[in-house]
Amino acid sequence: MKEELLKEFDAWVMKMSAYRMALSLIGVDKQTLAPKDGAPYRDERSAFLAGELFSVETDPHMAEVRRELLADGTISAEKRREIELLDKEIGHILVVPKDVFVQYAQLQAHAYEVWHQAKDAGDYSLFEPVLKQVIEASKKMYAYRNSGLPMYDQMLDDYEPGMTMEIYDRFFDRVRERLVPLIRKVVEAEQIDDSFLKQPYPVGKQKEFMNRYLLPYLGFDASWGYQNETEHPFTDIICENDIRVTTKYLENNVVSAILSTVHEVGHGYYGHDVAPEYDGTVFNYGISSGMHESQSRLLENYLGRTLPFWEENYPKLQSVFPDQLGNVSVEEFVRAINVGRPSLVRTEADELTYPLHILIRYEIEKGLFNGTITAEHLDETWDAYYEKYLGVKAPDARQGILQDVHWSDGSFGYFPTYALGSAFAAQFVWAMRRDIDVDELLRTGRFAEIIGWLKEHIHRYGCRYSADEIMRMATGEPFDPDCYLDYLEEKYTALYNLK
Amino acid sequence: MKEELLKEFDAWVMKMSAYRMALSLIGVDKQTLAPKDGAPYRDERSAFLAGELFSVETDPHMAEVRRELLADGTISAEKRREIELLDKEIGHILVVPKDVFVQYAQLQAHAYEVWHQAKDAGDYSLFEPVLKQVIEASKKMYAYRNSGLPMYDQMLDDYEPGMTMEIYDRFFDRVRERLVPLIRKVVEAEQIDDSFLKQPYPVGKQKEFMNRYLLPYLGFDASWGYQNETEHPFTDIICENDIRVTTKYLENNVVSAILSTVHEVGHGYYGHDVAPEYDGTVFNYGISSGMHESQSRLLENYLGRTLPFWEENYPKLQSVFPDQLGNVSVEEFVRAINVGRPSLVRTEADELTYPLHILIRYEIEKGLFNGTITAEHLDETWDAYYEKYLGVKAPDARQGILQDVHWSDGSFGYFPTYALGSAFAAQFVWAMRRDIDVDELLRTGRFAEIIGWLKEHIHRYGCRYSADEIMRMATGEPFDPDCYLDYLEEKYTALYNLK
Repeated sequence: MKEELLKEFDAWVMKMSAYRMALSLIGVDKQTLAPKDGAPYRDERSAFLAGELFSVETDPHMAEVRRELLADGTISAEKRREIELLDKEIGHILVVPKDVFVQYAQLQAHAYEVWHQAKDAGDYSLFEPVLKQVIEASKKMYAYRNSGLPMYDQMLDDYEPGMTMEIYDRFFDRVRERLVPLIRKVVEAEQIDDSFLKQPYPVGKQKEFMNRYLLPYLGFDASWGYQNETEHPFTDIICENDIRVTTKYLENNVVSAILSTVHEVGHGYYGHDVAPEYDGTVFNYGISSGMHESQSRLLENYLGRTLPFWEENYPKLQSVFPDQLGNVSVEEFVRAINVGRPSLVRTEADELTYPLHILIRYEIEKGLFNGTITAEHLDETWDAYYEKYLGVKAPDARQGILQDVHWSDGSFGYFPTYALGSAFAAQFVWAMRRDIDVDELLRTGRFAEIIGWLKEHIHRYGCRYSADEIMRMATGEPFDPDCYLDYLEEKYTALYNLK
Repeated sequence: MKEELLKEFDAWVMKMSAYRMALSLIGVDKQTLAPKDGAPYRDERSAFLAGELFSVETDPHMAEVRRELLADGTISAEKRREIELLDKEIGHILVVPKDVFVQYAQLQAHAYEVWHQAKDAGDYSLFEPVLKQVIEASKKMYAYRNSGLPMYDQMLDDYEPGMTMEIYDRFFDRVRERLVPLIRKVVEAEQIDDSFLKQPYPVGKQKEFMNRYLLPYLGFDASWGYQNETEHPFTDIICENDIRVTTKYLENNVVSAILSTVHEVGHGYYGHDVAPEYDGTVFNYGISSGMHESQSRLLENYLGRTLPFWEENYPKLQSVFPDQLGNVSVEEFVRAINVGRPSLVRTEADELTYPLHILIRYEIEKGLFNGTITAEHLDETWDAYYEKYLGVKAPDARQGILQDVHWSDGSFGYFPTYALGSAFAAQFVWAMRRDIDVDELLRTGRFAEIIGWLKEHIHRYGCRYSADEIMRMATGEPFDPDCYLDYLEEKYTALYNLK
């Protein structure tokens, strides 16, 4: 009887994964290759397949199978966790009436269009009414859960299981206390010349460096990973052994495509390196947004921006761009790619100031859901925060409140995971450096051994364990934001010769 | 009541098209970009989705809906044809027990692998036992239809509705009678120098000609069509306004990628130009294999190999390859790309000898199913036919009987449509030349007007009408093989200065 139910459960997981694979592939294709005129025809059919997936996910019979399995004291701890993970995810869907769900999806699509137009026009007032609608609709959706928890806590938990405002407050308080003064010192210090990074670097040559040197150095293997170009770089995990990453080349920025690729390859390894015994199971995915972001940022910032990384790779970059970089030393290059400078746009922010972009969004989101901030004139609130924390003011909403797509989508609670990812990464690197000589491995092209450490301590578990459990197993400690802030302080104190 | 049933029918057609779109896209992706290590994981999930499609197709309730609709005297002629087309297709599936179907699919997969290995080894004896199994399994599958018709007639009809051995015999008899002596004369005539086509033509430059000149000349528009590279060129129609074509560049052959692209774009237009009122309906597909092939061959041979086509395009090709083609006149170039010369491999055969490759396969298939030929030592039979009709003998089975994948797949009856396509095309061109000045349009870059004629008389109908009906509407005549043979005789008599 139990065996029958387990078989049914596994078949159901497989069934969902088939629809998800198809939808992922349709999505990647749409963003890379698909002819635009086919979009309405494809979208209608994708929506149908998404509906089929929804029906499979919310199948009441499978809810019953899960209930019976959970009531059985003899199932393995692993199976119990698989079931619980899905039960939680699907439970959130099941409580919402289908028509409310459909209305919400329609509102999301509409809000995306309006956001796009408002951004093009640089006019927040166009977006304000629909943002209000999205906030109200989100509140309505979450109210069905009837969990008794503060609404924003529920949102935070959706993207980062276990996280609450209480924990994030402690984290962002430390970020604020330590980074705001540090950034002030950096702004007042003697500035680093990074102008040579912004010369013309022909894209064809950038691609040559990418394909001939960078991807092989990273060990990103065409037999399981594929790179393409898109307007906004992303990583999509189609299924086991099939990872698609994209990048964007900028003619006047030699490091943009390189570091964004290192970043995406970090996501890619996390997707690829889950243990084979979890193939086809619920565990075959990253545990949370923050954990995923920790792996991409670890590669991008904690490896890809270091001197040892470039000791190996810079001579190759110079050989591709002798005119532009022939007279720039590797030390000058590495200093330039680490410049810290307050700016307006999150996706272009540097490692030092990035967490404050997130802090601002966190405080605004929290305010929107505890009633202390409203969508009314939210552009002004936004600008005031940027002024306060980063000392910069957007010339228009395009570079201000309208820069990110997330809120049009109702993705409240997502942003904080970006900063958390950097902080997780700092602690993982701290532990990794106890075990292996990271700098020596970077310097001698033994990148695979670094990935090996990550695989052994993080990637292979997929979502078998929680982020908190993985942090404790990998580092021997609970998550500690100061590990991250110590790293930033040390790095930028040295870089800018601060007292 | 009728309205309800019609609504149900349309929703069901939409549902099938969603699965078909996903499976097409997964297939194209697999052949172009997908990392190979993901294949087993993707394949398992694709097989699941194909199974879902099968369940939708064979839904007994929908068979009942179709039955009721067909019994209703008031439905439109269009809707009746839609239902009848699906009824026929699905009827063939419904009569076969599911386990037989599954076994057959497994045998196909196995036979493909064995064919591949046998081809690599150049050894027919490896493939012979599994070919026998495929033939027996095909016979078993067709026997369930219990139609009383000769088995090979049923197979022919599956790929080309309405075709029978009687009609094909008449066609191939004329092909044999007229082409065998014509080819003999060509072989004995003074040969044309085409050696300059086989110099090194750097692939990068070939792509430049493709993207800068050829695709724009053909009007192949990135907003609805996309080109990629594969080992074997193909066209896949993902859905309305979404056509994917592929090509293969050969360093030592300047016309291979060009003419194969013209060919595939012919398929592409047929897929794209079905009337918008048929969007999402059964009619939104080409009517048959032969009709599809007629459109690709029309573009490739009847337009792409003509002097007027190259009067416009050759100076551009010369500008890209001044060293290779600077001293070759357009007349010499066009003569060279039309050389007729018996050869071993169908996919590399020229316009003149191609139909004999098909004739050989037709005679063998017919013999296999009427009992006059067996799979035993079929390589010897194959070689004897090639000797007899083309005067050539394969050095091994790789270039002989194992060159094509079709039989491993059980696709008996497919080959004849390739020759039929060329013959259909000849008759369409004959009619088109009555209406418009094709040469002048080619010469002046007004390719869109030629496509316009094809769209008006052929493409827009999709499969609303049968191939026979379309032939009569477009040309005013029933299909006449001599139109094709007259064309070849006239063309090659002039080209080789034959008496």
